[in-house]
Amino acid sequence: MRLATLRTEDGHRAVRIENDGMVLLPWRDLGELLERPTWREDAQADGETRVLDIAQLAPVVPRPQKVFVVGFNFPDPDLLPTPPEFPSIFAKFARSLCGPRDALHLPDPSISTQGDFEVEPVAVIGKAGRHIPLDKAAGHIAGYCVGNDASVRDWQFRNRPPLIGKAWEGMTPVGPWMTTADAVDLASLRMTCEVDGVTMQNGAVSEMIFSPEHIVSYISTLVTLDPGDLIFLGTPPGHAFGRESKPWLTEGQTVRAAITGLGDLVNTCVADPVLYQSTPHEGSPA
Amino acid sequence: MRLATLRTEDGHRAVRIENDGMVLLPWRDLGELLERPTWREDAQADGETRVLDIAQLAPVVPRPQKVFVVGFNFPDPDLLPTPPEFPSIFAKFARSLCGPRDALHLPDPSISTQGDFEVEPVAVIGKAGRHIPLDKAAGHIAGYCVGNDASVRDWQFRNRPPLIGKAWEGMTPVGPWMTTADAVDLASLRMTCEVDGVTMQNGAVSEMIFSPEHIVSYISTLVTLDPGDLIFLGTPPGHAFGRESKPWLTEGQTVRAAITGLGDLVNTCVADPVLYQSTPHEGSPA
Repeated sequence: MRLATLRTEDGHRAVRIENDGMVLLPWRDLGELLERPTWREDAQADGETRVLDIAQLAPVVPRPQKVFVVGFNFPDPDLLPTPPEFPSIFAKFARSLCGPRDALHLPDPSISTQGDFEVEPVAVIGKAGRHIPLDKAAGHIAGYCVGNDASVRDWQFRNRPPLIGKAWEGMTPVGPWMTTADAVDLASLRMTCEVDGVTMQNGAVSEMIFSPEHIVSYISTLVTLDPGDLIFLGTPPGHAFGRESKPWLTEGQTVRAAITGLGDLVNTCVADPVLYQSTPHEGSPA
Repeated sequence: MRLATLRTEDGHRAVRIENDGMVLLPWRDLGELLERPTWREDAQADGETRVLDIAQLAPVVPRPQKVFVVGFNFPDPDLLPTPPEFPSIFAKFARSLCGPRDALHLPDPSISTQGDFEVEPVAVIGKAGRHIPLDKAAGHIAGYCVGNDASVRDWQFRNRPPLIGKAWEGMTPVGPWMTTADAVDLASLRMTCEVDGVTMQNGAVSEMIFSPEHIVSYISTLVTLDPGDLIFLGTPPGHAFGRESKPWLTEGQTVRAAITGLGDLVNTCVADPVLYQSTPHEGSPA
C-alpha cells in the first residue's frame, strides 16, 4: 500500500495511491492518519478518487514532530576510513522539507554556493515507542520513502553540530509516497541521484551500516519516537562534497533522487532571495 | 508582563502571572497565544484567577515547532581557548522539555551516568521571520525565561553531532514563565545553577559572545523562526563536564537553575526506567 499527503484547494489530505489514481482519505495528512492505531485498516477506506498528480503532493508527512538524519551510514572509503562505532545522528525541521516535485531552495549565492545532494532511504514511524527492543523495532516502522538530504556544506562545517548546514527551509525533498513496510524488500533496492540527467550517486541499500531497526531502537533509548517521525537513513558516496571537482548545485539544475520501487523526487533548484519576510508554514494549523 | 502555560484538569491553558496569582487566558498554551499578531494586547484579557502554583506549570511553550541551543556562547578558557567564529547551534525536541518543578529525567545508570546541568537564558520567539536583519531581530523576541540545557555527556561526544546527548526526553527544564522583553534588561542579569544547594555555575549574562539578536538574525538566514520557537542562549562555565572531579548528576539530587528577575527551575533528578512503552506527549493534540 502506498500513502501520501495531497495539497488540495482545502488544505492537506491523506491519500492512498492506487495505480494512476489517488483516493482521498478523511485525515488531514499522512501524519494524522499514522497517529491512529488502526491506520492500516483505516487507510483502506473508500473515498473520492483523482488522477495521480505527483506535482500536487506535499512532503509525505508535512509536519512531523521530529526529523532525524543518520550520517556516515554507507561505506565511503574516502570520507570514512573506518565505520562509526555508533550511529551519527542530527536533526532537521518540518520547515526543512519540500514535496517530490517542488522547487529545491538553495541559498542565495551571496550566502553560500555549496548546495549538495544526498539520496537516502527514509523510514516513517507508524507507532510510538520508547526503549524499543531491536526485535520489536520493525513493528514501529510504517513504511519507507525517498529523501534527498540536501546540504549547505560550508555552513555544515562551520561548527561541530551540522544542523545549520542541514536544516535549510524547503531544501529537503521527501516522498513521493510512503510504501508500507510489508511491501518493501529494503535489501534489494538501489538508490540513485542524478543532476541534469547525469548519475552522481548509485548505491545499494543493502550496504547500510546500521539497519533501520537498529537506528529506531537506538534513538528510542533517548526519546520516544512518534507516529509520523521521519528518519533519513544515510547516503552512498558520490555527492558533490566527496568529489574532487566539488560540483555544487546551481540554480536551474534538476536533481532526481530515486530508489527502485519507492518512486522518485525530481526537484529543480531555485535560489532563495534574501528577503526579510514571514511565510506561514504549510503544516501550520488552519 | 509574565506569561506561562498551566496544566489544568482540562489540558493546557495560557496564563498571565500577576503577583501571586495566575489569570487563565482563552488560548491552549503560550505557543498558541504567541501565534496571534495581537498577543501583547490579547494577553491582557480578564479571566478566572487562581493562586500561583509553579508546580502546575508546563514547559513555558509545551510544543514549540523548533528548539535551538547555542553552544560555547560564554567565555570558558578551559574548554574554549578562542571564541567561536560563528554561533554553534544544535537542536532539541518538544519531548526533551519539562516544566519548572517537574522531575528531571536522567538515563538509567545502565545507559549513562554522565548527566550534566547547564543554566541558560532562553529567548522565546513572538513573531515569524526569515532573513531578519540584525536591527529588526529584537522585534521578533517576545521575551526570555530560564532553561537548563541538561546533557548526557558520553552520548553527546560519541559522534560529531551533539544531538543524541542533548535531546533526552523530559530532561530539559524550561520556564517558569516568559517575561516579556520590554521588562528584561538582559545585560544586568546573573545566572546561577545549584546542585543540592551548592552553587556550581554563577555567570553574568552580559558576557554572552553572540547576542540574542545576532543569533535570531543568523538562524533566520536558513529557516523561518516561528512564534513559540525557543532559543537556548548558552551556559557559563561550572558544569560537571568542565570540572576535573566530574560531579555528574545522580538520582535524588535537586538542581536549581535561576536567573535574577526571570525566576527559577527546581528539578529533582529521577532515573528513567528502561521500559518498552509508549507515552503520549503532553503537547499532543487532544
